Amino acid sequence: MIEHCVEIRVRFVETDQMGVVHHAHYWAWCEVARLALMEAIGYPYTRVQAEGFHFPVIELQGKYRASAHFDDRLSVWAVIREMPRSRVEIFYRIERQGQRLFDGSSRHAFARKGGGAVRPPAAWLEILACRL
Amino acid sequence: MIEHCVEIRVRFVETDQMGVVHHAHYWAWCEVARLALMEAIGYPYTRVQAEGFHFPVIELQGKYRASAHFDDRLSVWAVIREMPRSRVEIFYRIERQGQRLFDGSSRHAFARKGGGAVRPPAAWLEILACRL
Amino acid sequence: MIEHCVEIRVRFVETDQMGVVHHAHYWAWCEVARLALMEAIGYPYTRVQAEGFHFPVIELQGKYRASAHFDDRLSVWAVIREMPRSRVEIFYRIERQGQRLFDGSSRHAFARKGGGAVRPPAAWLEILACRL
Amino acid sequence: MIEHCVEIRVRFVETDQMGVVHHAHYWAWCEVARLALMEAIGYPYTRVQAEGFHFPVIELQGKYRASAHFDDRLSVWAVIREMPRSRVEIFYRIERQGQRLFDGSSRHAFARKGGGAVRPPAAWLEILACRL
Repeated sequence: MIEHCVEIRVRFVETDQMGVVHHAHYWAWCEVARLALMEAIGYPYTRVQAEGFHFPVIELQGKYRASAHFDDRLSVWAVIREMPRSRVEIFYRIERQGQRLFDGSSRHAFARKGGGAVRPPAAWLEILACRL
Repeated sequence: MIEHCVEIRVRFVETDQMGVVHHAHYWAWCEVARLALMEAIGYPYTRVQAEGFHFPVIELQGKYRASAHFDDRLSVWAVIREMPRSRVEIFYRIERQGQRLFDGSSRHAFARKGGGAVRPPAAWLEILACRL
Repeated sequence: MIEHCVEIRVRFVETDQMGVVHHAHYWAWCEVARLALMEAIGYPYTRVQAEGFHFPVIELQGKYRASAHFDDRLSVWAVIREMPRSRVEIFYRIERQGQRLFDGSSRHAFARKGGGAVRPPAAWLEILACRL
Repeated sequence: MIEHCVEIRVRFVETDQMGVVHHAHYWAWCEVARLALMEAIGYPYTRVQAEGFHFPVIELQGKYRASAHFDDRLSVWAVIREMPRSRVEIFYRIERQGQRLFDGSSRHAFARKGGGAVRPPAAWLEILACRL
């Protein structure tokens, strides 16, 4: 299992008129955690791009367990649990001082720019294989 | 089945540096369709609020089948398939000239402001019962 | 004077916990109006891009006169008042049923992708000259 | 002069298809810096709200000098230069390793919720008077 955590402080612009964070913004935070995980394992998104790939989202799932509020300090975890095959699955959890606010996951494909899905880059799979 | 469709034109601000729409924005479009459906059946969100309720998202699922691009004209469908019990499930599909770009769903609770989940308002259930 | 108006309906995601639209989102609406104006005069942004240009914002000014609310139907005007020289100035006003909510302006440069500012494309200046 | 700086790391969702940060997002960063300044002087936004006030934006100005990119680490400064009268003016500058990317300012009113503009709270003016 490869895990990485980023600390997020909720911005005012992320709230809506219910007085809590709008649900769409959780995915921006998960993305921050996902890209920080990619960087932490030595394969940052700049390298993904430099090698001519995109890493688009093809599926999302999320459960909203408790509301996040303006100015909350949150821990956002991104986790890779097992070696990917053609698709990559990443899991997320968001916590505020140990309270679980959100669980989710995303599935991704590697894709050539302007083209279809391809196998994940071999160098990236090697990095994962060493850690999983 | 209760269906409602809104037409969306993709905004420049919704794109990201992959050159396509960022995945988080699809949920804002689904919300537009969901609230338009609520209005179309005679129970607009302003009434939800006036009666002291929130209608928070508690779960999301989405499959991204093809990319949306700047300036695309999209049809965003919101669908209620069956009578809700304590939770309400709403389905979405997004199309561009008949091509499916996205399928998704959201689950919602009715909640008292600042309080926990409650049963959906009786008046709302009656409206649905007449149409489903 | 070249004017163009688009109709915007305020989205829930555009509100914040003050219960009104967050100020940052007005600029996304102005952009919608600006790009619709570009299209209306026969020089859509897709052409700007196809010819190898960007049209970045280099300056913004805005006065927020009254709040916009969820579900408001707004008229967003983009206006070019005079022939641009090296920089292009575009004015905006946002109204709700005749009430002025916002006045603003943006200044833009034409720029080569990855390069510095250049003179506006001759074909674009000709279009403006016929209309101003 | 009262100054406060926050460090921002650019998110992927903040880019657009020009490959740089969309201009609207700078205002969300300025807001982060403004509210952090409010907190640093001992008058956080939670107190503004608890005392029944809003602090809406009534005017914005910004000059975009150079583009911000995904993953950039930016310093965002908020500055109060002089004692406010009825309106409060706050200045911003955004830098990347000493390079100036953006200068801006915002004007604000204190307002009663659901009401019109009022004088800034006396306690807040006292805090500023001690520091300016």
